[in-house]
Amino acid sequence: MSEEITQNSVGVVKPKIIEFKKSLSLDCGQHLSSFKLAYETYGILNKEATNAVLICHALSSDHHAAGYHSLDDKKPGWWDTCIGPGKPFDTNKFYVVCCNNIGGCKGSTGPNTLNEKTNQLYGPDFPIVTVKDWVKSQSYLADALGIKKWACVAGGSLGGMQAIQWAIDYPQRLANALVIAAAPKLSAQNIGFNEVARQAIISDPDFYEGRYYEHDTVPRRGLSLARMLGHITYLSDDSMRAKFGRELREGKLNFGFDVDFQVESYLRHQGQTFVDKFDANTYLLITKVLDYFDPALDYEGDLSRAFENSKCNFLVASFTSDWRFPPERSREIVRALLDSNKEVTYTEIEANQGHDAFLLPIPNYMELLTCYMLQVDKEVNNES
Amino acid sequence: MSEEITQNSVGVVKPKIIEFKKSLSLDCGQHLSSFKLAYETYGILNKEATNAVLICHALSSDHHAAGYHSLDDKKPGWWDTCIGPGKPFDTNKFYVVCCNNIGGCKGSTGPNTLNEKTNQLYGPDFPIVTVKDWVKSQSYLADALGIKKWACVAGGSLGGMQAIQWAIDYPQRLANALVIAAAPKLSAQNIGFNEVARQAIISDPDFYEGRYYEHDTVPRRGLSLARMLGHITYLSDDSMRAKFGRELREGKLNFGFDVDFQVESYLRHQGQTFVDKFDANTYLLITKVLDYFDPALDYEGDLSRAFENSKCNFLVASFTSDWRFPPERSREIVRALLDSNKEVTYTEIEANQGHDAFLLPIPNYMELLTCYMLQVDKEVNNES
Repeated sequence: MSEEITQNSVGVVKPKIIEFKKSLSLDCGQHLSSFKLAYETYGILNKEATNAVLICHALSSDHHAAGYHSLDDKKPGWWDTCIGPGKPFDTNKFYVVCCNNIGGCKGSTGPNTLNEKTNQLYGPDFPIVTVKDWVKSQSYLADALGIKKWACVAGGSLGGMQAIQWAIDYPQRLANALVIAAAPKLSAQNIGFNEVARQAIISDPDFYEGRYYEHDTVPRRGLSLARMLGHITYLSDDSMRAKFGRELREGKLNFGFDVDFQVESYLRHQGQTFVDKFDANTYLLITKVLDYFDPALDYEGDLSRAFENSKCNFLVASFTSDWRFPPERSREIVRALLDSNKEVTYTEIEANQGHDAFLLPIPNYMELLTCYMLQVDKEVNNES
Repeated sequence: MSEEITQNSVGVVKPKIIEFKKSLSLDCGQHLSSFKLAYETYGILNKEATNAVLICHALSSDHHAAGYHSLDDKKPGWWDTCIGPGKPFDTNKFYVVCCNNIGGCKGSTGPNTLNEKTNQLYGPDFPIVTVKDWVKSQSYLADALGIKKWACVAGGSLGGMQAIQWAIDYPQRLANALVIAAAPKLSAQNIGFNEVARQAIISDPDFYEGRYYEHDTVPRRGLSLARMLGHITYLSDDSMRAKFGRELREGKLNFGFDVDFQVESYLRHQGQTFVDKFDANTYLLITKVLDYFDPALDYEGDLSRAFENSKCNFLVASFTSDWRFPPERSREIVRALLDSNKEVTYTEIEANQGHDAFLLPIPNYMELLTCYMLQVDKEVNNES
């Protein structure tokens, strides 16, 4: 953690864990009789509890959105670019909350935690959860923190889907939804990629039908493949060309199956390091959370009807080179909001970094978030 | 084989195998002291041997380009759409030749054939070959068939790359090159997908470093994953949406890891059936053939210089929804040809089927090929 970085950082933060001793009924028909959420907060909640911002994480991230866990940390939280003093989610103004969702593997109740009924780790017995379930569990957290209404719920990718679900399920409980690089539901191609990732994990002999903890092993090969594949879909063709081109690692072709091109080396590294940080059962589960997201389904496929009761303002943003959830998918959300007479700001940000752009400090994007959050801050102050 | 289909079919064909008892030196520095090619021919070679057309196959296909191997065959050869009496490559006019390339697994010398030096199957000891090597081996076949000059060399995808290489390496030996849905070299994203496919195969415990024949097993999981992944990249997002959408196989979500969506079922089926038809070592090898293709490399990256000595006319065609080798990649080829003052016709065909479009009977596309080949036929008749 260098001094330069810490100037506008929330600094060293400590994750908290909260246990809810009340039942959470899930979309699948099962329920969790109790559950824990790991979460972090940055900034101070005002007296009226009107300046709270909920940040929702995407596929492979967690509650550690900003700052550092120790002075030795090399990397800050996953959205440190956007959260901190003077940053778009300005912690001098807002009380920022981020939790690891249920089914996660970073401290919240999930496949790698104890099932108190069986006194064993959940493993594959952890129920398939949905964005709706996540949002419900986050509402418990809001209750516990004394937050009746979020000034804003924000997220990119799967995080943006949670912001959408908040606007639909708890219309009274948020003033703004920031939906970034998201989609109203996955396409067949999106589901196809997720299915290849799942099959890679499930077909790994070390998976043991999800009971690999008991066998003291990890489906490394499968999880690593899933991550390599995912990673390609997070980058644009252009950004990969700019980053690697056809550069050879050793300056020449080796006429074998070792690494020839830099891009191969990079992807292998991404896959291998991910395995040490993430749980395969959680990866499986979260790809299903993505596949199942389709808030229009209860409204005969009409997304505008799903939004009918929403009361918040919306910011929808997409990135031109994102081919995982391209601008066209964001425009579907915008169209539904307009059809439903909602307030929506839409921006298509010129960026060649692909889907990952939502994590990066792209000037136009930072400016957009900053401006929007200044407005949110004004609303907060008017209310107080 | 229904009567309807056979009306403009080449009918039942018999593959041939030819053995070359002469050494083939390869790009990698090794050589094959002898080798076999499996091939098929359709139509009749004219007396002057001026009406010969070479069809080059792509990643997972072979020498069986048209017709049927038996009356019971349900499917014809892979490019039957284009080859036959009255079809673009009209077998009433042209003598059409297609061979399985070396390194293949359908009868030509490759990993699953006997290495006469060791009296064992080649397996992973089969050398990494290149498009240049393939074209050289095809020139041996041309010699053997008495063909001094092809009226046309044609192919889609990796097949188009072979047509390019013919134009560069044997400028006197072809009158036309048809380069369809190809690219002058793979992008980092293309290589990335190939690398994930390779890692899926190589990390399968049943792969045994390529010596799975000796273990009487097959890396089913890995090869199946590779095919599933490949398949997604052959289709467009649109065509997958049109074909599957988010249709559920059983009409409801099952909240588990069995098949929910039709697209999952389709991809699993594609993967599983491919394993029974294709060899994993060949799959690995051919992904490397693709990755290594870069004819400009010997010319300081200047593709136009690579084409300098080419004498043939070119047809370059791309498909609007192809995101594996999008139109932009074809235009790179066209630009290089124009910079080198070559005759080139370029067409971008409106089609939403993605990369696979080059195999499909799309009316505009069929018309294009038909018109071009009529011209080729005229040239043949003028020469005779």
